[in-house]
Amino acid sequence: MAQAVQASIGDSEFDRDTAVTPRTPGVYDAELSAGWTILRAVNGGYLLAILGRALAHALPHPDPFTVSAHYLSASQPGPAVIRTETVRTGRTLSTGQASLFQYAEDGTETERIRVLATHGDLDALPDDVRTSATPPRIPPYGKCLGPADGPAPDIAGSSEIMNRLAIRLDPATVGWVVGAPSGKGEMRGWFALADGRDADPLSLLLTVDALPPTSFDLGLKGWTPTIELTTHIRSRPAPGPLRVAITTRNLAGGFLEEDAEVWDSRDRLVAQSRQLARAPR
Amino acid sequence: MAQAVQASIGDSEFDRDTAVTPRTPGVYDAELSAGWTILRAVNGGYLLAILGRALAHALPHPDPFTVSAHYLSASQPGPAVIRTETVRTGRTLSTGQASLFQYAEDGTETERIRVLATHGDLDALPDDVRTSATPPRIPPYGKCLGPADGPAPDIAGSSEIMNRLAIRLDPATVGWVVGAPSGKGEMRGWFALADGRDADPLSLLLTVDALPPTSFDLGLKGWTPTIELTTHIRSRPAPGPLRVAITTRNLAGGFLEEDAEVWDSRDRLVAQSRQLARAPR
Repeated sequence: MAQAVQASIGDSEFDRDTAVTPRTPGVYDAELSAGWTILRAVNGGYLLAILGRALAHALPHPDPFTVSAHYLSASQPGPAVIRTETVRTGRTLSTGQASLFQYAEDGTETERIRVLATHGDLDALPDDVRTSATPPRIPPYGKCLGPADGPAPDIAGSSEIMNRLAIRLDPATVGWVVGAPSGKGEMRGWFALADGRDADPLSLLLTVDALPPTSFDLGLKGWTPTIELTTHIRSRPAPGPLRVAITTRNLAGGFLEEDAEVWDSRDRLVAQSRQLARAPR
Repeated sequence: MAQAVQASIGDSEFDRDTAVTPRTPGVYDAELSAGWTILRAVNGGYLLAILGRALAHALPHPDPFTVSAHYLSASQPGPAVIRTETVRTGRTLSTGQASLFQYAEDGTETERIRVLATHGDLDALPDDVRTSATPPRIPPYGKCLGPADGPAPDIAGSSEIMNRLAIRLDPATVGWVVGAPSGKGEMRGWFALADGRDADPLSLLLTVDALPPTSFDLGLKGWTPTIELTTHIRSRPAPGPLRVAITTRNLAGGFLEEDAEVWDSRDRLVAQSRQLARAPR
């Protein structure tokens, strides 16, 4: 749908729904929004962004450089509390830990996800780039496929999160929608927030876990729960849609890895992530 | 040097030097051996193996499936204490946290490294393999280069750890020894323990961080300190030397990633790791 006014960093759905409220030093309240669910579970990248916001407040450095998350139990929409610990503070980097808990009916807390993160200041880094990585070959935005392009690709059914995202997939990686997966274990496409908010380091934590799982392209159906997800944020993203390429090389023993890379509009590799997930049964 | 008797898993230098002694529930004493130092710092993979051994004791599942480590300060040979926390226990997986501390002269503890790890039982996994990954092209063991092959490659100077390892590097990735790095950011070779002990999941945690840094192949000199290292152990390794291939695609802003994969003698991808490191200045 057309946006009358483009949302901005700090004033958008994503910012409101990942807000944290300090309760006591290092402890934050949050409300997990039903707007970021896949089927009924809250998206793992959305959770990472909330934890990243809490740590950005708790630590002396603003930007997540590397975030390692271990997923413990499925999160539900509703209230949550985040408890952080400052592990080490240095001149250019600081390390913290954060856990997100939700409440059972009897008031006991259940831990949903725990992260270790090292933060720094992306704007303080030198501009040197000596990368051999090249952007993924993805057709132009208009040639990729979104939910409005008919049965292919209704990429997540009735999942609420699809209303918050503008994802358009490379036609080469959507064969699974019509029963013809490539078998390569690849997923590629364009990523933007639906309200037009540009990307920042916190929203990149959402971006790395937002596309359909590569297991679909391997011909597998069903849930691919994340066990662990580590993300490196390497540069502040430039405005405009992002390109995301995800690959799985090793499906074995009932588990698989997903390697994601995210490129911005000036062809900078702004994020790299890898997760270990349980393969569909 | 020739080994009169090949060491075995459970009775080897590696096992003795990574031993942990329970002090109280979840707390372990260890002695960091000077035998596993690079220049004067204790090798990061050796530390991971000690932490993995403590968690294997503390958690109900024996094998590290995914280990996320954030490095906080440089470790020195000498006594250390490991404090573990059981975060979650499930039927097939359990998650724990462990920190390694060393003592200052006044008795205060300094945290060296903190890990989040999810453990499972590799022997309980199904045998299915649907991988698109293929083993790295590395010349046969006898065509690769070790410390005895003259100036190339005296791969770590007087570092003690080189006496514990039998590493032979692919000639294509040792040009840096004679001032002619390939510039590709690659490091490949064969890995074994010098006393002939075969690999197990704990020694794989050492293997992923044992080769010279890819920054050498990029023409950079100096120290490449690890900020964070996450390792997935995907299968119990078969006996025999391992093949290790490490690549760096993105050197930017003063940081670089190193992606390592480890293959065993039956062509199984047994470990995958990625680290974020600070580039040499």
